[in-house]
Amino acid sequence: MRKIALVGIGKIAQDQHVPSISSSSEWRLSATVSRHGRVDGVENFVQIEDLLAARPDIGVVSLCLPPVPRFAAACAALRAGRHVMLEKPPGATIAEVHALHDLALAQGVTLFASWHSRAAQAVAAAKVWLSGREIRGGHIIWREDVRKWHPGQDWIFAAGGMGVFDPGINALSILTEILPQPARVLSAELDFPANRQAPIAARLSLSQGISADFDFRQEGPQTWDMEFETDSGTLALRMGGNVLEINGQPAGGQMSIMGEYPALYAHMAELVARSACDVDLSPLVLVADAFMLGRRNSVKEFEF
Amino acid sequence: MRKIALVGIGKIAQDQHVPSISSSSEWRLSATVSRHGRVDGVENFVQIEDLLAARPDIGVVSLCLPPVPRFAAACAALRAGRHVMLEKPPGATIAEVHALHDLALAQGVTLFASWHSRAAQAVAAAKVWLSGREIRGGHIIWREDVRKWHPGQDWIFAAGGMGVFDPGINALSILTEILPQPARVLSAELDFPANRQAPIAARLSLSQGISADFDFRQEGPQTWDMEFETDSGTLALRMGGNVLEINGQPAGGQMSIMGEYPALYAHMAELVARSACDVDLSPLVLVADAFMLGRRNSVKEFEF
Repeated sequence: MRKIALVGIGKIAQDQHVPSISSSSEWRLSATVSRHGRVDGVENFVQIEDLLAARPDIGVVSLCLPPVPRFAAACAALRAGRHVMLEKPPGATIAEVHALHDLALAQGVTLFASWHSRAAQAVAAAKVWLSGREIRGGHIIWREDVRKWHPGQDWIFAAGGMGVFDPGINALSILTEILPQPARVLSAELDFPANRQAPIAARLSLSQGISADFDFRQEGPQTWDMEFETDSGTLALRMGGNVLEINGQPAGGQMSIMGEYPALYAHMAELVARSACDVDLSPLVLVADAFMLGRRNSVKEFEF
Repeated sequence: MRKIALVGIGKIAQDQHVPSISSSSEWRLSATVSRHGRVDGVENFVQIEDLLAARPDIGVVSLCLPPVPRFAAACAALRAGRHVMLEKPPGATIAEVHALHDLALAQGVTLFASWHSRAAQAVAAAKVWLSGREIRGGHIIWREDVRKWHPGQDWIFAAGGMGVFDPGINALSILTEILPQPARVLSAELDFPANRQAPIAARLSLSQGISADFDFRQEGPQTWDMEFETDSGTLALRMGGNVLEINGQPAGGQMSIMGEYPALYAHMAELVARSACDVDLSPLVLVADAFMLGRRNSVKEFEF
């Protein structure tokens, strides 16, 4: 088993990373770094620099911090010769991920910019089905309740927190994986709460007749669906990429998101074995393009 | 002499592109495409598709359209096997320039995403002087009067027009050319006029202690300056990269911006001779990052 340290023990670490590592035969959670979070029975450090100095035996670091503080932690780990796995989005800016990638290549270590939704159970099958088909149009609906998934996390609505693009980039990570040809943002509408610096809803028009509707104010049932019309049939991915329908009929997957992070850690083990990098920024490019090109609307103030 | 067509006969075409082509021994302006603009004695087409169909003898197309409509024209020209030169910024989104680059490579033709300020007279010397030095800090001031340089051009304040980043990206194109190490946007403040969809002023904090102050409301003297402190002396570029100072003393260049576009067309001739591409998106990445990461302020309405 390979030793790994988790940095940033918040909700996503407790919900997904810790169980995925614990259930893996390839990884052993050997340390954490967090100001307030703890994992029972695992040594914790408050500063990543202290971890890196005290535990040279831990060669791999997985970062679950929010995007803005993540860069400095990733630099420190890479400079110390550690392999690094990044939660999504891999950075608050494109340029900082380019810098991390350059550093990982210079150090000869792994950098894995993970996209957990790409590991959803029906994504690979959707990609195979779409390959060779012509996209005639598509629609993405990604509506969830920020109070449920990010309770009290003010950083998500601060500058650099990305707001509704934090979940929306999951949809875009699937889209960029499964489309036979890359899509571009043609126009975007971004709804900013009057008291926040990141959008709470967004509507994108993309090339190939694809539209996207992202909303962080969805109460009741949550929706993570995408549908495509092609020259020979329709495809739908539901449940965040975990359930596949072809021409309206069930075609694979299952109603659970719990397979995504175990798949990411299995891929990380394979990358570390080769000291290889996996850094695809195309979902982040679409988000940056939407911010650069988008129209901004001011909407009702939001409080958690 | 090689035949070239100019698409988009507006102010920048008349001020810079037409004189640069006319004074070149390598190029002959053989057609234009414009709804309203004309160049005396040169055949004009209203649609680029008509030019491409009617004039197979013209192998090179230079696009001076605003960024939003430029993509479709560039696609048409590349698909028709023409070499293409793009005014800056090369696109309204990063993804569309990636798509154009992929298309140019597939077609085996030149795509030149030009950055005219990189061709300013003191930029190459500044790059040489900075190489091997450590940047301790820097400051960019890029303040110009939008009414003087873009009279009545409402597109510049529409979504995708980039606002003050239209000139600001010139500064960033120099910055990304001359710095020994890449810079990243750490934070940004963007001032949007209440009646517009693009910022009229912006302040950026970049890595390496570099700050930038972009303003489109500058009346009177215009300012396009950047200064850097290093571990061994200071460097200043003034007049948009055309004048160099080292440790406060004049060190080259001249007080004119008129050498930039002739240098671009000379470079384009060299690229076309090899069917090579020159597409560096790093200035556009910094702008997209500033939009994604920036704080938005609402400021006074703006009318031309």
